[in-house]
Amino acid sequence: MTGYEVLEIGSPDEWLAQGKRFADKEMDTQYIGVSANALEPGGEAPLWHTHSRLEELYFFLAGRGQMALDDDVIDVGPGSVVRVGQGVWRTLRATPESPGELRWLCIRSGGGELKEVSGDSERDAERPRPW
Amino acid sequence: MTGYEVLEIGSPDEWLAQGKRFADKEMDTQYIGVSANALEPGGEAPLWHTHSRLEELYFFLAGRGQMALDDDVIDVGPGSVVRVGQGVWRTLRATPESPGELRWLCIRSGGGELKEVSGDSERDAERPRPW
Repeated sequence: MTGYEVLEIGSPDEWLAQGKRFADKEMDTQYIGVSANALEPGGEAPLWHTHSRLEELYFFLAGRGQMALDDDVIDVGPGSVVRVGQGVWRTLRATPESPGELRWLCIRSGGGELKEVSGDSERDAERPRPW
Repeated sequence: MTGYEVLEIGSPDEWLAQGKRFADKEMDTQYIGVSANALEPGGEAPLWHTHSRLEELYFFLAGRGQMALDDDVIDVGPGSVVRVGQGVWRTLRATPESPGELRWLCIRSGGGELKEVSGDSERDAERPRPW
């Protein structure tokens, strides 16, 4: 899939107002998925989820937060890169004390064309958060 | 490849001083490669390159720059996402007038385990830049 394509997805200070945006749903990517995300201090992801095929990399750019990974909770901030493998349940939040918005990119890929390996997620909106 | 791993790759304001860092070379990723990059105003990539298997996504976060893609030159800034397919030659620079450093992530993946599809690049340090 040769050629190139350009998308203007908004600068990081616009991500909160825009809501989660998936670059791969607004342009025609082949293997790589990426979403631009932001949460206000104290905000949290709406649910836990896991993937059976996709690997995800969470690349944090600003603010302070926590990620829950199965039974673990880790602290994240600017420059934290979290690789999450298949079958790991995850959710996250911006800590109430975060100095500004938590902003991050969530990158995903799965060893094949993205459209073939997507749709592999399982979600759990009932599982309690660990914080 | 289940489980998770955390890397602290430095906050965006440290990327210039650190030099280009590949998260995938400092942690054990499966499908996704990503590097953290910064250039001072007027700075440019050392050469043109292309990939025969990998797709790359350049996600710009701060500053102003230009990318050369074969015979085209495009302007990029915060929130520009550029997908580059196989066989396209590319290079980039921060424009001299950029209000601060150009900062971006370069994400790559290739439809298989990263270690199997990497090593597919061709480089040209002699080709003149178009700006």
